[in-house]
Amino acid sequence: MGIYMDNAATTAQKPADVAEAMTKILQGEYGNPSRGAHGYSLAGFRVAEEAREQVKKLFQADQRYEAAFTNNATVALNEVLKGLIQAGDHVITTDWEHNSVLRPLYQLEKQGASFDVISSEAVTGRLNYGEFVEYLRPETKAVICNHASNVTGNLLDLEWVKDFCEKHQLYLIIDASQTAGVVPIDLSDGKISAVCFTGHKSLYGPQGTGGVCLRKNLPIEPVLTGGDGMQSFSKVQPKELPTLLEAGTLNIPGLAGLTASIQWLQAKEARPELGEYFYQGLEEIAGLTIYGDFTGARVDVFSINIKDAESAIVSDLLWEEFSIATRPGYHCAPLMHNALGTADRGTVRISFSSFTTKAEVDEVLAALRNLALR
Amino acid sequence: MGIYMDNAATTAQKPADVAEAMTKILQGEYGNPSRGAHGYSLAGFRVAEEAREQVKKLFQADQRYEAAFTNNATVALNEVLKGLIQAGDHVITTDWEHNSVLRPLYQLEKQGASFDVISSEAVTGRLNYGEFVEYLRPETKAVICNHASNVTGNLLDLEWVKDFCEKHQLYLIIDASQTAGVVPIDLSDGKISAVCFTGHKSLYGPQGTGGVCLRKNLPIEPVLTGGDGMQSFSKVQPKELPTLLEAGTLNIPGLAGLTASIQWLQAKEARPELGEYFYQGLEEIAGLTIYGDFTGARVDVFSINIKDAESAIVSDLLWEEFSIATRPGYHCAPLMHNALGTADRGTVRISFSSFTTKAEVDEVLAALRNLALR
Repeated sequence: MGIYMDNAATTAQKPADVAEAMTKILQGEYGNPSRGAHGYSLAGFRVAEEAREQVKKLFQADQRYEAAFTNNATVALNEVLKGLIQAGDHVITTDWEHNSVLRPLYQLEKQGASFDVISSEAVTGRLNYGEFVEYLRPETKAVICNHASNVTGNLLDLEWVKDFCEKHQLYLIIDASQTAGVVPIDLSDGKISAVCFTGHKSLYGPQGTGGVCLRKNLPIEPVLTGGDGMQSFSKVQPKELPTLLEAGTLNIPGLAGLTASIQWLQAKEARPELGEYFYQGLEEIAGLTIYGDFTGARVDVFSINIKDAESAIVSDLLWEEFSIATRPGYHCAPLMHNALGTADRGTVRISFSSFTTKAEVDEVLAALRNLALR
Repeated sequence: MGIYMDNAATTAQKPADVAEAMTKILQGEYGNPSRGAHGYSLAGFRVAEEAREQVKKLFQADQRYEAAFTNNATVALNEVLKGLIQAGDHVITTDWEHNSVLRPLYQLEKQGASFDVISSEAVTGRLNYGEFVEYLRPETKAVICNHASNVTGNLLDLEWVKDFCEKHQLYLIIDASQTAGVVPIDLSDGKISAVCFTGHKSLYGPQGTGGVCLRKNLPIEPVLTGGDGMQSFSKVQPKELPTLLEAGTLNIPGLAGLTASIQWLQAKEARPELGEYFYQGLEEIAGLTIYGDFTGARVDVFSINIKDAESAIVSDLLWEEFSIATRPGYHCAPLMHNALGTADRGTVRISFSSFTTKAEVDEVLAALRNLALR
């Protein structure tokens, strides 16, 4: 169809193993896990448990952690934030957050919680880490941070935030939607309370998968409740993880696909570094504004604008004239655009995957050069 | 592996079209719907819209209704119940409900709502419809009913309940987990407010699909919030359906599978009626207690016990000795067991699908005859 550069929204190309693993479930003899002791049910249960083990291994999670599955990162973030934060609690978050964090926080604010937002710099989007301590209050309970901005590609200084949270005894929730599978996340020091992730982006799994890898001892009240197949006479959702956060039937074919994709990720060869190459190419194009911080660690998500053009017009031209799929607008991250200075027109977002080639990157640069001359 | 008779938990056998449709998405060029205007995103969008149209057509829903997708019926029930019922509201429900309805209601009760439960008869599980009017109060806002009991297979008198709700101006929410795809549900008279359904049972779609087909004008506050790809600067989830109930990325391969399964359902030939045949066979076995009402309309879900044996032991023997997969216990429906008189040992549940054959039914009857002689 063209050149797909919208991998921060979803990776369109998946390893072949994913569809194969899912087909195996759908054409095989797999029942509903935890809903019977027969072989079909156990086969389904084993698929879920294998995915759990893969996720825990990926995040180097030890026995203090459990993985619970949802249908996407948004639901996981809702479950963790709304389950953990009560009226009266205070939360520190950042300009980088997606609406999957901000909208739950606005809802919690209506219910009597409060939050402050760490600001970031114009154009570079660099986070002002000094503000963390300024916003600290006796009632501060948690920090929720995007591990990498889905607008700029800037990576959080996770070690700094971990130490801050440890020092002040705050729960630390990480939104790894842009990083799981591409930036290592190491839970082995126990400092992160919960990592919310999606399966369908840089983990290369199917849509319909995601979840949270979290400390078992978090005082979470379930947002979603239902059958668990075990404690039918209990009026409340069982307190045990993962059941506490997994109301209703799991996406077993999806989890088989996720296991396959994580295994593929771990076995694949490192791909040539294209981000720095692309950035250098962008810098040579007159008339481009490049957003983000290119002095530190980052993921391959780039936001640009061309002269004073609307991002939607540039993105449409890229698709119509060059068959290059990018995403214009605000990327569900309004505060980031207030900070960058792009609240009026958004940005054109270009995001790579493991399948992105140098030839494709060259074509994107050529198209941008063409458009910048108009 | 054996004879699968746990289709009320999930239909293990799916039409071949389901895996094919999902593989087409995973190996094709499909992006994240509503997150860009390029061809990949539009291709993903069309998959979701086609599934929406299939669901609406299945339920004969006109333009007053919309279909919104979740990962299972439980999440749909949570979204509708918690989104609609406020502190001070009263709800009427039944003994037949699954914990996916009861546990949300217990949570709502803690927040100041209240509910009453229509009782049902011992052994037959027949619902005492006369109680509906007894429980009616000025603050009664909604009725939530299981369309068919997942324990007995009894079918609700939906026309009666629809008329009751219309007469008293109550929202009517139907849990169609056991009926969607096997019992027609007709929304064309506009009397039902919301039908919550799952994709992976009698719709023969993949796990990870489900949702709700609901009146567009319901005053629902979203339980889950997040990005919608469109109105990034809004602090709240957009009020428009389906976005209001679809926070985060949809399960596009799953929805392609659901479309394929609904199309398969509508094209397939009617299967021979095996429920009545099975019931007659059961009746001939001495020592069996058969639960449920066999005088009216029902789905092919049967609950039995053998003499005074624990249901778990019978179910284990059926699996270990006869390779027949059934489900023992409470089936996440505690009040049903209080009513039936099986709260001490549950029931052995045997549930058919469209793929169930007469030969398989005969094998089940033979196994039960064998066990009943011990």
